[in-house]
Amino acid sequence: MLTRAFETPAFRDGFAELLRWRRDVRRFRPDPVPPALVTRLLEMATLAPSVGLSQPWRFLLVESPDRRAAIRREFEASNAEAARIYAGEQASRYAALKLEGLREAPIHLAVCAARDPVAGHGLGRQTQPATLRDSVVCAIHTLWLAARVEGLGLGWISILRPAVAEAILDVPSGAELVAYLVLGWPEAAGEEPELAVAGWEQRQGLAAVLETR
Amino acid sequence: MLTRAFETPAFRDGFAELLRWRRDVRRFRPDPVPPALVTRLLEMATLAPSVGLSQPWRFLLVESPDRRAAIRREFEASNAEAARIYAGEQASRYAALKLEGLREAPIHLAVCAARDPVAGHGLGRQTQPATLRDSVVCAIHTLWLAARVEGLGLGWISILRPAVAEAILDVPSGAELVAYLVLGWPEAAGEEPELAVAGWEQRQGLAAVLETR
Repeated sequence: MLTRAFETPAFRDGFAELLRWRRDVRRFRPDPVPPALVTRLLEMATLAPSVGLSQPWRFLLVESPDRRAAIRREFEASNAEAARIYAGEQASRYAALKLEGLREAPIHLAVCAARDPVAGHGLGRQTQPATLRDSVVCAIHTLWLAARVEGLGLGWISILRPAVAEAILDVPSGAELVAYLVLGWPEAAGEEPELAVAGWEQRQGLAAVLETR
Repeated sequence: MLTRAFETPAFRDGFAELLRWRRDVRRFRPDPVPPALVTRLLEMATLAPSVGLSQPWRFLLVESPDRRAAIRREFEASNAEAARIYAGEQASRYAALKLEGLREAPIHLAVCAARDPVAGHGLGRQTQPATLRDSVVCAIHTLWLAARVEGLGLGWISILRPAVAEAILDVPSGAELVAYLVLGWPEAAGEEPELAVAGWEQRQGLAAVLETR
């Protein structure tokens, strides 16, 4: 039987290492990312699983400086609001975190989900419509890993009000924003999540989250 | 600079091939999966990104024959209902699809999301609470790829009413079902999605889903 390139012990070790070294990156070098590489990564993302093969992902490469600046302002407003739930030492720690990389990252990518795609003919999503968004998240996660394989870092900026961001980005009608991503060459690489290094939260073991039924 | 095991040309090729060969599997051989392997895969899944490092994934290994049988009955009821939107040739094609592998798959795994996890202290999800579910989907997709690296197939059974499945599974309070997964050794491997082979839907190119702003 033919052995695939991903069925070797070396690949297995590399894959486990990839998962440990994938990071949510907020600190980028300003160097550009070749457009052909971005296209290749997006093509890999479209190999993600999707409910009923509905392929509901819609990608918007955000190049306009005005739109990027408006997204930054929306982040700043939402983040100031988000900070209000913390007090004391936790508030100081929150204020010290770097939660975006919007100014430095060379690539801004908004990823949207079609609300009622023709593809797939509705298969598999009648009882669970959220699986459309789930499919888009699988594409984002595919992109995330594929980027890391190329040495690129990806950050998911979730501190934005979706309706405001959708207006800024002129999201296609019939689609909704799932994630605003920044992509570029990371300043540093590490095995620990930045939030763990910053003392905000630590990784939990499997035992705490696994039960039998 | 140290080169990581996932930063080699061979790994890059293997990773691209892994994405092409990952399938949503519904046809399993009945051979058991070693429990230590399942544990290792779940540990890899917990390396997935999560909003604010909230790690909201909760895993339920479903071993009870009664619960498995009840899930099968719920699938059959929901699938009979889902089939009603199709007519003519499409209805025949739908009826011929194999949309679950609940009887054959040795491992049944329900993956849930905590609605308000303590971990992460709410960071990053005030404006977009759906990112908790998104984090769990990233863990599922990690598991999916890790399983494929080991030669295992995973199937996501979405044709279930969440509230019914949650009652069958006695989902922990404070959590909600995201996905019911089946896992085992696949009968066959292929580069084409089963729904494409069956003529239900075809893959789309990137051009149709990419715009610039």
